[in-house]
Amino acid sequence: MNHDDWVRNELWGLSKSLGFRYTPPEEIEDRLKQVRTAMEKEEMEALLVVQKMDFYYLSGTTQDGLLFVPLEGKPLLMIRRELERGKVESPLNNVVALKSIRELPSLIQTHFGKLPNSLGLELDVLPVRDYFRYQDLFQGARFADASPVFRNTRRIKSPFEVDLMRKAGEIGGKVYQEGRKILEERMTEIQFGGLLEAAAKRYGHEGLLRVRSLNYEAYTWHVLSGPTGGIVSQSDSPMGGLGLSPAFPVGASLRVMRAHEPILVDFGTCYHGYQVDETRMFSIGKMRQKFGDAYKACREIHDAVLDEVRPGADCEAIFFKTLRLAERLGYKESYLGPPGLQTHFIAHGIGLELNEFPFLAQGQSYPLEKGMTFAVEPKIVFPGEGSAGFENTVVVTQNGYEILTPLEQEIFEV
Amino acid sequence: MNHDDWVRNELWGLSKSLGFRYTPPEEIEDRLKQVRTAMEKEEMEALLVVQKMDFYYLSGTTQDGLLFVPLEGKPLLMIRRELERGKVESPLNNVVALKSIRELPSLIQTHFGKLPNSLGLELDVLPVRDYFRYQDLFQGARFADASPVFRNTRRIKSPFEVDLMRKAGEIGGKVYQEGRKILEERMTEIQFGGLLEAAAKRYGHEGLLRVRSLNYEAYTWHVLSGPTGGIVSQSDSPMGGLGLSPAFPVGASLRVMRAHEPILVDFGTCYHGYQVDETRMFSIGKMRQKFGDAYKACREIHDAVLDEVRPGADCEAIFFKTLRLAERLGYKESYLGPPGLQTHFIAHGIGLELNEFPFLAQGQSYPLEKGMTFAVEPKIVFPGEGSAGFENTVVVTQNGYEILTPLEQEIFEV
Repeated sequence: MNHDDWVRNELWGLSKSLGFRYTPPEEIEDRLKQVRTAMEKEEMEALLVVQKMDFYYLSGTTQDGLLFVPLEGKPLLMIRRELERGKVESPLNNVVALKSIRELPSLIQTHFGKLPNSLGLELDVLPVRDYFRYQDLFQGARFADASPVFRNTRRIKSPFEVDLMRKAGEIGGKVYQEGRKILEERMTEIQFGGLLEAAAKRYGHEGLLRVRSLNYEAYTWHVLSGPTGGIVSQSDSPMGGLGLSPAFPVGASLRVMRAHEPILVDFGTCYHGYQVDETRMFSIGKMRQKFGDAYKACREIHDAVLDEVRPGADCEAIFFKTLRLAERLGYKESYLGPPGLQTHFIAHGIGLELNEFPFLAQGQSYPLEKGMTFAVEPKIVFPGEGSAGFENTVVVTQNGYEILTPLEQEIFEV
Repeated sequence: MNHDDWVRNELWGLSKSLGFRYTPPEEIEDRLKQVRTAMEKEEMEALLVVQKMDFYYLSGTTQDGLLFVPLEGKPLLMIRRELERGKVESPLNNVVALKSIRELPSLIQTHFGKLPNSLGLELDVLPVRDYFRYQDLFQGARFADASPVFRNTRRIKSPFEVDLMRKAGEIGGKVYQEGRKILEERMTEIQFGGLLEAAAKRYGHEGLLRVRSLNYEAYTWHVLSGPTGGIVSQSDSPMGGLGLSPAFPVGASLRVMRAHEPILVDFGTCYHGYQVDETRMFSIGKMRQKFGDAYKACREIHDAVLDEVRPGADCEAIFFKTLRLAERLGYKESYLGPPGLQTHFIAHGIGLELNEFPFLAQGQSYPLEKGMTFAVEPKIVFPGEGSAGFENTVVVTQNGYEILTPLEQEIFEV
């Protein structure tokens, strides 16, 4: 059989029968409208979208290619591989093959009637070598950084996006419930982490978490037990764990977990590209009092954050409120990391990437808005001993919030 | 307890007891020597290493930071997070804190006695915005692309590196053996893939595979059954599978696997950052004749490649030889993908990243050298029906090769 024919005739039906949800045309229209409002402010005549998640956001597909978005007129979706699949997946209707990057100007000229005088590119992630190439191809054009356009637009999630995150939250909830049956004494951290991940995948978790960064890597198997919970690592996180080697010094290790020690499980679930993040504590037998207490404090801080969440609330003010509360609860020295290594955020925006707006953090004084989604994650860290943490992902609603990771809040004691 | 004290006193012992292997000082010395030879040819006075795997290669740590490598004199390792851990992990002895990127010139001035006139940066991956920042910080300096320096040096693996890959291969072998016990009728592809991944992690597989690319993502759960094996996707691969959604349209899907159909498992294992790649076929009951035959052809092509592997053999010539053999075997239209979508390589270099030199591919006419490592992967694809494939990772030795993924070659029939 011919591959093109198969894709045209069979892909939609097979993928829908297996749960694929394609981005509706109206959704793409709405997003384009918002992106264009931002482009206009920045005086960009057109965007060339190169980064996979921005590309998915505006096209509905992650096939390999480039998306040209003029301020007015239809976008042009250019696909390197695989073209027919891109046509099925994207609701856009100007979809062409991109055989070589050298063809880019002529494809745009044909579609747009001219070459743009100013072109937005995602300069926060675009490699320099590619940038030089675009400068050669579009000589005389003014290049501007399009990343604020995307980061600002994507910070507010539509009902369609929130629904995908809700579904990710449902998967996460099932995984924690199964964790209760999986966890056994003498298991290693990574063994437990691997089985949680396997459970999540069975429900459709995509396995890869995504971060907008050259070097920052995200991963799901974040299981820290006893002393490994007290170790800070490369990530901007209160603690990173020991990991498996100097090449991956974060997350679960080959350490055998023991009874009564705190076992922190920080698990990210990804459904159709949309991620939620949540943390619960497990213990084998009753958890040591010190960590049970710290966990209670984390829940109290988490609840205090949610008490403030509504449109208009200031992100930085909420962060500072938690510092005062942590101090009052007796955790000044261990809140969000050990002294000198404490992080300066209590929540990070989340969606297609793990480091989206808003950040409830020092230096981030701006209001919450309806449709923002973020993960609230108080953590308390004792070097050499372990850590406690609690985390949920929420969306800001008209008058407050909705928790996208509903799940019991007690310690998962087995 | 103080975090610094804990790291200084306990990290080494705990991590070694859990299997960590730190890069020996002599290994780093050798690598530095080779990198400097390449720098000299390119007339670079210094390198600023930003990319995680290049950074690990020359420092032995992946803590977050930057590495300054002058052509002469000692390298300067600057760590953002976590400093004490970087000191333990790296055999380099000039290790300082990097509190802000603004401090970079003064740290270098203090260490090097001046600022460099020419500076190599990895322009193939460095984001444009960061590049502008470095231009501001090092005004007047000439910037050059350091990526060829790294890609050329890293293409030859030392015995230490090959040994880590051998260990990754051992893990992979155990995982395929366990796969035989795991696979059952009515399982979905992703369920099987998740359990294979969990098995690998239990043995120390790091879960994340790494590719040098903005958008290309690597993943381990590449389980394709029947028709999903016939689908091409975004990746430069003979077939990509259906995946789980338009956001992750590659690899295993929620499709239920059936008896007698071809089940292709292409699994990458990562140990201490070093990866190997291998493919075997599974079937529930006897595999359909058409795919059993195609699998035999893949093995024949694989063996024909290995017959040629020795120092001095030309990479492109080996690729063309396989085209002729595939045609003779009756697979001209299905070898390496369906017509119009066929890929143009039979092997890709592998190590810290999945797209290293050498490529046994069209347009890549250069000789194999001792210490090169690559994955040989003949695949045969029938759209709408499925695919067959076979793959091993090998290292070039003095007179031939060693297979780093030793494992039985028959179909894994359960």
